Amino acid sequence: MSKDKDFVREITRQGEDFSRWYIDVIKKADLMDYSPVRGCIVFKPDGFEIWENCQRELDAKFKATGHRNAYFPMFIPESFFQKEKEHVEGFNPELPWVTEAGGEPLEEKLAIRPTSETMIGHMYSKWIQSYRDLPLLINQWANVVRWEKRTLPFLRTSEFLWQEGHTAHEDETDARKETMQMLDIYRDFVENFLAIPVIVGQKTKSEKFAGAVDTFSIEAMMKDGRAVQAGTSHYLGTNFAQAFEIKFLDRENTLQFAHTTSWGVSTRLIGALIMVHGDDRGLALPPKVAPVQAVIIPIGPAKFRDAVNARAYELLSELKTAGIRVRIDDRPDVTPGWKFNEYEMRGVPLRIEIGPRDMENGQVVFVSRNATEKRTVAQSDLVFEVNDTLVNIQNEMFSQAKRFMEEHSKEVSTFDELKAMFEYKRGFAHTGWCGALECEKKVKEETGATSRNIPFQPLSTQKCCVVCGQPAVHQVVFARAY
Amino acid sequence: MSKDKDFVREITRQGEDFSRWYIDVIKKADLMDYSPVRGCIVFKPDGFEIWENCQRELDAKFKATGHRNAYFPMFIPESFFQKEKEHVEGFNPELPWVTEAGGEPLEEKLAIRPTSETMIGHMYSKWIQSYRDLPLLINQWANVVRWEKRTLPFLRTSEFLWQEGHTAHEDETDARKETMQMLDIYRDFVENFLAIPVIVGQKTKSEKFAGAVDTFSIEAMMKDGRAVQAGTSHYLGTNFAQAFEIKFLDRENTLQFAHTTSWGVSTRLIGALIMVHGDDRGLALPPKVAPVQAVIIPIGPAKFRDAVNARAYELLSELKTAGIRVRIDDRPDVTPGWKFNEYEMRGVPLRIEIGPRDMENGQVVFVSRNATEKRTVAQSDLVFEVNDTLVNIQNEMFSQAKRFMEEHSKEVSTFDELKAMFEYKRGFAHTGWCGALECEKKVKEETGATSRNIPFQPLSTQKCCVVCGQPAVHQVVFARAY
Repeated sequence: MSKDKDFVREITRQGEDFSRWYIDVIKKADLMDYSPVRGCIVFKPDGFEIWENCQRELDAKFKATGHRNAYFPMFIPESFFQKEKEHVEGFNPELPWVTEAGGEPLEEKLAIRPTSETMIGHMYSKWIQSYRDLPLLINQWANVVRWEKRTLPFLRTSEFLWQEGHTAHEDETDARKETMQMLDIYRDFVENFLAIPVIVGQKTKSEKFAGAVDTFSIEAMMKDGRAVQAGTSHYLGTNFAQAFEIKFLDRENTLQFAHTTSWGVSTRLIGALIMVHGDDRGLALPPKVAPVQAVIIPIGPAKFRDAVNARAYELLSELKTAGIRVRIDDRPDVTPGWKFNEYEMRGVPLRIEIGPRDMENGQVVFVSRNATEKRTVAQSDLVFEVNDTLVNIQNEMFSQAKRFMEEHSKEVSTFDELKAMFEYKRGFAHTGWCGALECEKKVKEETGATSRNIPFQPLSTQKCCVVCGQPAVHQVVFARAY
Repeated sequence: MSKDKDFVREITRQGEDFSRWYIDVIKKADLMDYSPVRGCIVFKPDGFEIWENCQRELDAKFKATGHRNAYFPMFIPESFFQKEKEHVEGFNPELPWVTEAGGEPLEEKLAIRPTSETMIGHMYSKWIQSYRDLPLLINQWANVVRWEKRTLPFLRTSEFLWQEGHTAHEDETDARKETMQMLDIYRDFVENFLAIPVIVGQKTKSEKFAGAVDTFSIEAMMKDGRAVQAGTSHYLGTNFAQAFEIKFLDRENTLQFAHTTSWGVSTRLIGALIMVHGDDRGLALPPKVAPVQAVIIPIGPAKFRDAVNARAYELLSELKTAGIRVRIDDRPDVTPGWKFNEYEMRGVPLRIEIGPRDMENGQVVFVSRNATEKRTVAQSDLVFEVNDTLVNIQNEMFSQAKRFMEEHSKEVSTFDELKAMFEYKRGFAHTGWCGALECEKKVKEETGATSRNIPFQPLSTQKCCVVCGQPAVHQVVFARAY
């Protein structure tokens, strides 16, 4: 027992220091390691498998909506960044530059992509001639680099992995439809696969993507009340089409600029997943994304071990056949208590215990990661019960996270209230806003919170701007963000 | 009909100019495009999908043999390249260097990975402490960069995509077993999935991987008689373990260096696939890797169009349900002849025609890409017949390629004969070799051919070195190579 306690004590408690808790958990659950390159992490197998599961799910959704994958060079000529003014201003400070290659200085230095609108814009201008070439619907899974000053594993790293969709359309209507479709795919994926509730809305002008006409986002709340932008979808208008000459002959034989979109989610989702569901016992993974959905742990005295293990392996094989991602831990030199803690810490959604008495009664014991009470289940119903329990855990985890977000969201009408909110605790402040940049700036300067988005379904109905008291043009969510 | 002829004429004939044929085919089949960055190509959706199919197949094989995926930073500190002497000499000339980032010059410049033995070696030294941590079996799917002087789409590009496996073991026996296991997985994949026969063997000392003890390869023959190294597996001994201090306490509690391996295949396989199977009509893809395995083309007069199309869509849906990757082309404004050429050029293995008479007879017409005779098949047997035909096409394509390789392989006993062989035609020369570097070098200088490998199952039984006449120590395959 003392071993079990020591084990748990290695993770800082969330209430004590949330940042340290986060680092403790991701290190202890073996999700990542620091690398010798500033701000770059190693995605270890247990962390990378979470990303692989996200990829498989998202990739299927992209393909089902007519997108195809491609791969573009990661090197971007310096001149490309001069073509779209906002884009260069937004990204230039964060670019790494290749200046030598093959033993010689390069004639034109090459940036490593922070995002690929420029390279893809250049290629699309060659591929698109006629309205018959539209819509062009392409996605890319890739590594990108942004040389960030402050980094945090998964949430903000110099090199990270993501997907970036880039589409071109005949007109604004079609491009905006695509922008919204992808935003909804992200919402659906994050809410129903990762069990993370989000606020869906539009970014304010100052927070939009550099080069976009409109940026839309889904915003999630971490357990420390801070926000994570979990996905963005941009309507780029004809900005990049004009910069890169993506022109086509329309149905009336007139030369037009294409309307483009881009949209992406990244490995920062892994960070959000941990910060939304994790607790003082460690990681907690929703069943749909969990690399291991259930672990079987045989228990009981040594003299029954062989018989219990034999039955446990039969059940393992039954569950595997049913497509459940299940593992067994029958190591004789590790105590059951230690194993219980271990798999709870690693966030395995369901633990299945089987001992000599369970053998006699033809049953097993279920313990869900998110609610520790035990439940007895007949071995004959095992596959059904596991599937059913995993569905319940998935739904409960979403409900728990949603309740947390609601409890830490508040309608705020005065600036003093807003300041007090971010001074004493965190969360989402729903307020009215006049639309002026100065008011938005003042919130940031005096509270550290930024506007997350203008929700499509606002919680608040404030008539006045929380800062200046002028009539509110938008309802906005403010929060401190990662 | 004249349109059809024009269409075909756009591809240079193989016999006329093989290199031009290759570029014509990959451009016309829409597999790639050139990018504005020297030596970097864009993998367009039709080309990238071939790679996705390879990835899915290989990834399953890697996981079935206990490997897990991870992701390591692509930036490698300059100092890492100083640690393994052969490795630095082999790769330094081809590295691109990041010297500035985030608006400032870097303290230590960063290479972009040409391969990751150094970075992974560094991380393994932190992760491996005891024999209990071994074997460590990790694979990475990634982009890598080698700043090549001469580039060729897919076969040799500055940036390319690949997988690199990196494993660490307790001893030489276990590491060599892994090296051979992965080599055999590559052979199996290339022969049975890509239908490309290969020569399996060991690289000579001068051709081995920079830093390896032994390199093993599979070598394929293109239709111009030149070789492509289709995959390599390296036993690295303790070279990288010593350079990066990958040490562990063994079962006797003694500190030992780990024995490591690495192995990889890359997007150059796409180039090999095209050059092995393609012909004057264009691309030819083996069914297992083909993004589209069968295309249904409704034919006949306009007045029957609706009825024929309706039936064609029923068959489409039947085949899709059976898991066959099938497409329909019912465009009314394009002639059947044009479509036939189009899908032949794109390498679709099976064409299924259906017209009014076929409707009456309850049949369809099959035309295989690799043998143009037509065959009538009952609609009631469609799924079985398509599956059966695809298996046959896969097998026939392998046999055809194997026959080609055999016909262009020759046992050679004298240097004059060797010179003549590479002067007048190309292919694989199977010869004896004394093992001396000078003899190997002389072959390269005077014939342009390089040693491909020392086959495990040599075709030749030469008693003397083809260059110096001294007793042969090895049987070697020489060929001009991409």
